[in-house]
Parts: sequence; structure tokens; C-alpha cells
Amino acid sequence: MTVSFWFEFASTYSYPSAMRIGSLAASHGVSIQWRPFLLGPIFRKHGWEDSPFNLYSAKGRYMWRDLERICARYGLAFRKPSQFPRNGLLASRIACEHADQDWCPAFVKAVYRANFEHDEDIGDPAVVAQCLPVPRADVDQVIAQATSGAAKLRLREQTEEAESAGIFGAPSMLVGDELFWGDDRLEQAIEFAAGGRD
Amino acid sequence: MTVSFWFEFASTYSYPSAMRIGSLAASHGVSIQWRPFLLGPIFRKHGWEDSPFNLYSAKGRYMWRDLERICARYGLAFRKPSQFPRNGLLASRIACEHADQDWCPAFVKAVYRANFEHDEDIGDPAVVAQCLPVPRADVDQVIAQATSGAAKLRLREQTEEAESAGIFGAPSMLVGDELFWGDDRLEQAIEFAAGGRD
Repeated sequence: MTVSFWFEFASTYSYPSAMRIGSLAASHGVSIQWRPFLLGPIFRKHGWEDSPFNLYSAKGRYMWRDLERICARYGLAFRKPSQFPRNGLLASRIACEHADQDWCPAFVKAVYRANFEHDEDIGDPAVVAQCLPVPRADVDQVIAQATSGAAKLRLREQTEEAESAGIFGAPSMLVGDELFWGDDRLEQAIEFAAGGRD
Repeated sequence: MTVSFWFEFASTYSYPSAMRIGSLAASHGVSIQWRPFLLGPIFRKHGWEDSPFNLYSAKGRYMWRDLERICARYGLAFRKPSQFPRNGLLASRIACEHADQDWCPAFVKAVYRANFEHDEDIGDPAVVAQCLPVPRADVDQVIAQATSGAAKLRLREQTEEAESAGIFGAPSMLVGDELFWGDDRLEQAIEFAAGGRD
């Protein structure tokens, strides 16, 4: 009855999934584990030093059009970012450190909207700070904590865990050992989790 | 009201689409143009000398499981081929030469079933011959014609046309200039065509 939602802040198709998963899971009585990870280290093992959407131009052109159609279908605002991919490292470390906080889903969605709706640089700590739904007095502490050695290590370990689980792209959903990849598999993953087969 | 269905006989996700598109299109009043092409020349430009599902093992493992789930969902028989990818060159040339024949869809589906249901070598002319729903007396002629220089040229030109249209994988559906990629976009493509926006 739990789905692990593996996302990467730079990932385009993770945006609609991050925006949709909350209500979808709730309507099926499924709980969510929010698991940020980094695609960079996984892609580099494929020999890719950039997003495959940049390396393979036809695929990239298609993706932007497809994403536009998906967002229109789900009523999500979308503006093609002027920079792609953006650096989601700080935001990922924060989401990794605070995955169990009740504000984490709101933070994740705010970062995705900054990137894919408002075309803001989510690599900029000031932008990340604005996305944090915590009391103003706590913002600096959350950001400082996310740059500690322990926080860096945890995100690295979580990325290794993703790879060990067979994850190669984002978003990915894990229900037990059953892997689902892509925004177009989100419903299927939630239904699988709701079936109690995890 | 027409969808161009671009398929490659070695492509795993083209199998469920080839089996499903006929009834789906008919129920929406959409006509189908059957357009075989080859992914090999397109992949080679990416530097891939093999299927990306073989080159990237995590993605390959996921694809086989995902395809199994898709076939189960649609009630399609499926056996993982003992060889992948198989050589669909002869079958593609035949489908390209005879795309407008009323037997072409039945031929295409028979070849896909040979590969993905019966684990037969579709590179073998004897297997291709068994898939041809034409009078026995015509089989040899159809196969001979498919190996003519003109037939080879037509498939090569059709593959170049696919690439020019922005196609980078299979199955792909084109409705006018609007491109849809993947079995999971088949319904969307048919609905788009039914909306008369082509």
C-alpha cells in the first residue's frame, strides 16, 4: 500500500508526476515515499555527460512537445525552461534530508513549479529558499544542513540505492520490487500498490 | 482522419501496437497508413550498433517486464524471443512494397506474432513465407520482388522519410505533423486523428 516515488528535479517528466501523485495516491489509499535521487551519476555510466534529450536532438524535440501536451491534458502550467537540465543538487539534498516532514511534498512541488512553470534557476539557493514551506527563521538552517557532509552522503547513498533497484530514469515508481518508469506509468503503479501486491 | 503507423519488426513495443491499432482505429473511424521502417540506420547515427535495450541493461530488463505487463493487460500472448533484436529486413521490404494491399495488416501482425509469441526467426524467408496471407502460388513472387533493387530502395527512402519527420523510435504515429511515440501514446494518436486535426 506504499509507492516509492523516485524523482530527479531536473527531469522533465518528473514534473507532471510530482504534481499528480499526491491526489492520485490519496484517492487509492496509497501512501507515498518521496525519494529524490540524481540521474547524473547513472547517465555518466552510460557515457552521457548531458541529458539524453540534449544528446539526441530528435528525441529532445519530441519530449518538449510531448510534455507540453501532457501538461495541457492535466491542466498544469508549463513554460519550457530557458536552461536544461538545471542543477537540482541542493533541492535534492533538502528533500532527501526531510523526506518524512509533512512539508516535503509541498517543497518538491514548489521546486518543480519554479523550474517548469516559472523558468527559475533551481540551482540558486535563493530560489530554493523561496520554495521552502517552513518558518522564515528555519530556512537558513535547512539550507546549511543540506550542505553538510552527512546530507551529501545520504543523497549519494540514495542514488546508489536507486541504481541497485534497477532505476535508470525518472520518474520511477517502486512498489515492492515492481518497477514502473515514466509519468505514463504513474496510474498503473498506484493501482498496483492499491491492489496490495507489494 | 488518417494516422501513419511507423513500425519496425524488431521493435518490442511495436508488437502490442500493431496488434491493437486496427480495432482502435476502426472504432474511431480513423484510417491507417502502414509504414515500416528500419531503426538500425537511425540508431547507428547515435553510435549504437545494437538495440539500446541491449546496450543499457537496466533499461532492457525493465522493458521486458514492462512488455510482459502490457501484453497481459491487453490479452496478447507473449514469449520473450530467444534472440533480440531479430532481422526484420525482408518482412519490412514486403510490407513496404505491399502497404496498400488488403492483406498487409494481417501479414504485419503474423510477423509480430512469429517473433514475440512463437519465438520464430523472422529473418528466415521460410518463416516470412508462412506469414504471407496470399495464395500459395504468389508467395515466391512476393518474396523475390521484395529483394529487388527497387524494393530495397523504397524501404531505404521510407526510413529516410521517418528520420526527416523526426522519428527516432518505434512505434511512432504521425497525424499530419503531430508525432506520437510509443505504444502508450497509441490511444492519444488515434483520438487526435479522430478529432480531425490532421
